[in-house]
Amino acid sequence: MRNIKLVIEYDGSGFNGWQKQPNKLNIQGEIEAVIENITKEKIELIASGRTDAGVHAIGQVANFKTNSNIPIEKIPIAINSQVKNSIRIKSAEEVDERFHSRYNCKRKTYRYIIDNSKYGSSIFRNMTYHMPIKLNINEMQKAVKYFEGEHDFKAFKSSGTSSKSSIRTIYEAKVIEKNEYIILELTGNGFLYNMVRIIAGTLVDVGLEKLKAKDIPVILEKKDRQKAGKTLPPQGLFLVKVEYK
Amino acid sequence: MRNIKLVIEYDGSGFNGWQKQPNKLNIQGEIEAVIENITKEKIELIASGRTDAGVHAIGQVANFKTNSNIPIEKIPIAINSQVKNSIRIKSAEEVDERFHSRYNCKRKTYRYIIDNSKYGSSIFRNMTYHMPIKLNINEMQKAVKYFEGEHDFKAFKSSGTSSKSSIRTIYEAKVIEKNEYIILELTGNGFLYNMVRIIAGTLVDVGLEKLKAKDIPVILEKKDRQKAGKTLPPQGLFLVKVEYK
Repeated sequence: MRNIKLVIEYDGSGFNGWQKQPNKLNIQGEIEAVIENITKEKIELIASGRTDAGVHAIGQVANFKTNSNIPIEKIPIAINSQVKNSIRIKSAEEVDERFHSRYNCKRKTYRYIIDNSKYGSSIFRNMTYHMPIKLNINEMQKAVKYFEGEHDFKAFKSSGTSSKSSIRTIYEAKVIEKNEYIILELTGNGFLYNMVRIIAGTLVDVGLEKLKAKDIPVILEKKDRQKAGKTLPPQGLFLVKVEYK
Repeated sequence: MRNIKLVIEYDGSGFNGWQKQPNKLNIQGEIEAVIENITKEKIELIASGRTDAGVHAIGQVANFKTNSNIPIEKIPIAINSQVKNSIRIKSAEEVDERFHSRYNCKRKTYRYIIDNSKYGSSIFRNMTYHMPIKLNINEMQKAVKYFEGEHDFKAFKSSGTSSKSSIRTIYEAKVIEKNEYIILELTGNGFLYNMVRIIAGTLVDVGLEKLKAKDIPVILEKKDRQKAGKTLPPQGLFLVKVEYK
């Protein structure tokens, strides 16, 4: 059987997240239905991980198995011509039959975008979180560095997750200023439920000077969700890249 | 009476354009209703010009007259708190009573964004025009320069406009490449109906090598709408800036 790996971009605004669920618009279900229509087979599309309602992706990765002999270069065109245009297949590649989008994932990069302008942007309102109070970016940039390395991120996860361990490694963590936007970018070997949105919320507290940069290692140490900031809303979050060996 | 000048940003996607019309969602009507609710007066909001359905604005300018004594710095906050968040008032300023957003306008800048990637962007689909065939940007950059200066733009306007003369001056015309996007930016003393979208369509024909850069002065000269390119769709168009003396 052929194993096809897709790189997928989507505007999560109108969806109830990646995962298939009855009677709710979801990304997985939309793409699966189109692939099934093309291949005339029942298929299962396995993503690197689900994304929540309202969360966007620039480079989500998912794979499916098929007996169809459709040429690989025709796959993005065929899917894109039938799927909603809030979803785009960026590329398709034939991979080893053992390749699994979730299990084999080595690194993920997420981005969280804060609109720090006074009144917020109308045009980017579904792609940013609006924080009208001017944030101390310098202090946020100091704070974000404490997330790099291997840590127990227990204080930075929402309950309701099934992962056994809350230890993760962040390879790179940065806060970038671009016009009136503040962009958080995190690359790690994996992320707990709501982890990026809670880190973003904690960094906003640092920017508001409710917390200091040097409080971050203390919060990590204490492993207490109550000490971290709130979970910021989904629309500012983008899954940027998923990497494999 | 006080005369208040507003700078307005909007995502035109959900609207039937700027202009007030019964039973159709429009930007003017939405803002007027909010201002009337705030001031308890009947007001008229005069813009620098209307924008069509689907067209966006970063810096539309409009003014209204009022007897209300609401402090000027409270006006954006008051309107933004009640208007849809696809519309944002960026600033408000008290101006001379003779100021008129349309009649006094000296320069306008428009931007048209072409997404030249293979499959298009899902995230920016309502803010770009997708052209999957790779365009010759170099030739487009040569072509765009021919629009600078004073010309009769008769070949670059749609019918149905009431303007008497089709002579306009373009102060600056450029085509910029940014990642997979091609951005057309035009600053002029005024624009005819659909003029930017027709210039953009003509430049796409140049990019596709259906036309050469040096055909532009010929088309301007011939004043024949049929010789110019098609009118590109509204969602790629942004009214960026409106300038006064």
